[in-house]
Amino acid sequence: MDYAKESLKKHQEWHGKIEVICRAPLETRDDLSLAYTPGVAEPCLEIQKDVNKSYDLTRRSNLVAVVTDGTAVLGLGDIGPEAGMPVMEGKCALFKAFGDVDAIPLCVRSKEVDDIVNTVRLLAGSFGGVNLEDISAPRCFEIERKLKECCDIPIFHDDQHGTAVVTLAAMLNALKLTGKKIDEIRVVTSGAGAAGIAIIKLLIAMGLKDVILCDRQGAIYKGREGLNAEKEEMAEITNQECRKGTLAEVLEGADVFIGVSAPGCVTPEMVKSMAPNPILFPMANPVPEIMPDLAREAGAAVIGTGRSDFPNQINNVLAFPGIFRGALDVRASDINDEMKIAAAKAIASFVTDDKLSPDYIIPSALDREVAAAVAKAVAQAAKDTGVARI
Amino acid sequence: MDYAKESLKKHQEWHGKIEVICRAPLETRDDLSLAYTPGVAEPCLEIQKDVNKSYDLTRRSNLVAVVTDGTAVLGLGDIGPEAGMPVMEGKCALFKAFGDVDAIPLCVRSKEVDDIVNTVRLLAGSFGGVNLEDISAPRCFEIERKLKECCDIPIFHDDQHGTAVVTLAAMLNALKLTGKKIDEIRVVTSGAGAAGIAIIKLLIAMGLKDVILCDRQGAIYKGREGLNAEKEEMAEITNQECRKGTLAEVLEGADVFIGVSAPGCVTPEMVKSMAPNPILFPMANPVPEIMPDLAREAGAAVIGTGRSDFPNQINNVLAFPGIFRGALDVRASDINDEMKIAAAKAIASFVTDDKLSPDYIIPSALDREVAAAVAKAVAQAAKDTGVARI
Repeated sequence: MDYAKESLKKHQEWHGKIEVICRAPLETRDDLSLAYTPGVAEPCLEIQKDVNKSYDLTRRSNLVAVVTDGTAVLGLGDIGPEAGMPVMEGKCALFKAFGDVDAIPLCVRSKEVDDIVNTVRLLAGSFGGVNLEDISAPRCFEIERKLKECCDIPIFHDDQHGTAVVTLAAMLNALKLTGKKIDEIRVVTSGAGAAGIAIIKLLIAMGLKDVILCDRQGAIYKGREGLNAEKEEMAEITNQECRKGTLAEVLEGADVFIGVSAPGCVTPEMVKSMAPNPILFPMANPVPEIMPDLAREAGAAVIGTGRSDFPNQINNVLAFPGIFRGALDVRASDINDEMKIAAAKAIASFVTDDKLSPDYIIPSALDREVAAAVAKAVAQAAKDTGVARI
Repeated sequence: MDYAKESLKKHQEWHGKIEVICRAPLETRDDLSLAYTPGVAEPCLEIQKDVNKSYDLTRRSNLVAVVTDGTAVLGLGDIGPEAGMPVMEGKCALFKAFGDVDAIPLCVRSKEVDDIVNTVRLLAGSFGGVNLEDISAPRCFEIERKLKECCDIPIFHDDQHGTAVVTLAAMLNALKLTGKKIDEIRVVTSGAGAAGIAIIKLLIAMGLKDVILCDRQGAIYKGREGLNAEKEEMAEITNQECRKGTLAEVLEGADVFIGVSAPGCVTPEMVKSMAPNPILFPMANPVPEIMPDLAREAGAAVIGTGRSDFPNQINNVLAFPGIFRGALDVRASDINDEMKIAAAKAIASFVTDDKLSPDYIIPSALDREVAAAVAKAVAQAAKDTGVARI
């Protein structure tokens, strides 16, 4: 199928992938008097007395804003807020289909960090959570940090944390399969943007000790010139031996390669230089850092990509609907590392030991049962860490 | 029925009066590839090339934001954004039920004019129109004016213009019934807030020449001390004879009374002092400026109120769903006076001459056919005045 042509045709037919419907009957005069004036004054007054009642008496308890500024949409880059809308609507549709979460897209016409922060902050009372989407690095870090400080609802940048959760899930099963342990392996990444940094932070939270991030200039180490604030922070907590050099150089002897960068930057020779039974997650889209067949021929034990036409697709849809479902179910004030790790473990556990194989380390993105299991685990982790409010 | 108690119970059951659903199928891998990656890149790129395509390829063409700061909710006053949400959700539900318009509530956590303006301005690319709701005067005037200047989509403060449209519709039929002409009558209002001012401006646009606005201090006239900017503006264009005095004093000899103020401020004696066959629209809610039976006994020829339990309910739901439906249908950049007048005439014309009577000057708020007729008239007026974009 020519996805581009067919998708455009479908979008013209759909006239929007989401729709707002009415849950209250509005047929009779009494219906109007209950859903609207004069009856509606009573729930208003109840919320005025206790603002938490907004979760009981309005849709807030199930409602998430999907917020972008259109600066890093798919691989298309800075295409603007209106042009980002089809992706945001798609995200909202996935939220509903997989997590029964009501989500609405808000595309902000500004690239100023404070504009985006203020817009979301001022609207936080209307939603149960906020999913940040396709906002370019390093702005996305500052926006998320500021919003987490000023908002009392979960703020979750899916390009960072959704990707990190699903990568961790795949990693847990890949390690099980190869008999490696997270606190003993060496991980090397290509790509130190939003996704790359979030993945490594979550792996460190899970126990990873030895990791080197690479960007286009090679290994990131403490003291390297020209690092932005986020890379400087990563240089502090990674690459303890302060190794320098190209991706090829630092990949030698590594157990795991994680790619969130550009097509073709990993060669079969580089795979051969890695430790025995190497794990490779070349996730660049649509063309990975190394094609799976080449990686396999070069000795890769487990391979995962971002593509649906190869085994082991590392797809965010396995994570975000269930994570928000779980967070909303307990009115979580935050989505913290423990909740993300719980989500990753829940996803990983969907692949039972008897089915676990190099071609099956992660459930299908189409598996509707994953989100419910993720939600349950996330809600429990929220309770365990004190961020649940019911 | 105890509306307060029953409404609270219903709101607890409903858990929100609106819901976001998915319009695109998401069952198969191909479904995902068309509604989301990789196919979705194509509609994104189309919109990047021509931002107007966002109306064809996303829900924008049918989507309205209902925006409040919670400062003037119903008669409850400044109850805050979260507490205003049940009303906003109710409005969204009415938008869908009567106009097939998708509407989402955005409650802004700030009372600063510029905060509200910036929030809406930055999100204008995500919507086809904005309905401002329950924002206190005089801030609502400044917010609407600023937004109209900076946004390329219709900005419509329903408390002003929706009320004005339905009042004009009722007025047209009341005048027909009493044989009075709009350019010959004297109108006196009680209440010079958002609704009162908007009603008079629209009546002036329809040809009204002789009108006196009253607030709590009595008649508003040029040079009266302590007037805010909006009342000063109204003092310029109304009360040409510069009459001073109480409501009772200026109401003497008037043909029409319009009340958007407080219960009981009009007495039977005041009605008796009016011109023959006076028209009274005491619209204070829930208790009108004078009860209809008292007004009738005192000689009122036609009476309309805001209440559903008396004849002639002047209810905004007759206007806003159809007005936005029409504006969206032609991608109007604005909702101007001509469109409002067209809406009022369409509503008025629903009462055919053979049915027109003192107890039936305006169609029922439950009549589902009104919105479609209003939409048609509004769309045509938009075309005629050059604000339609398709």
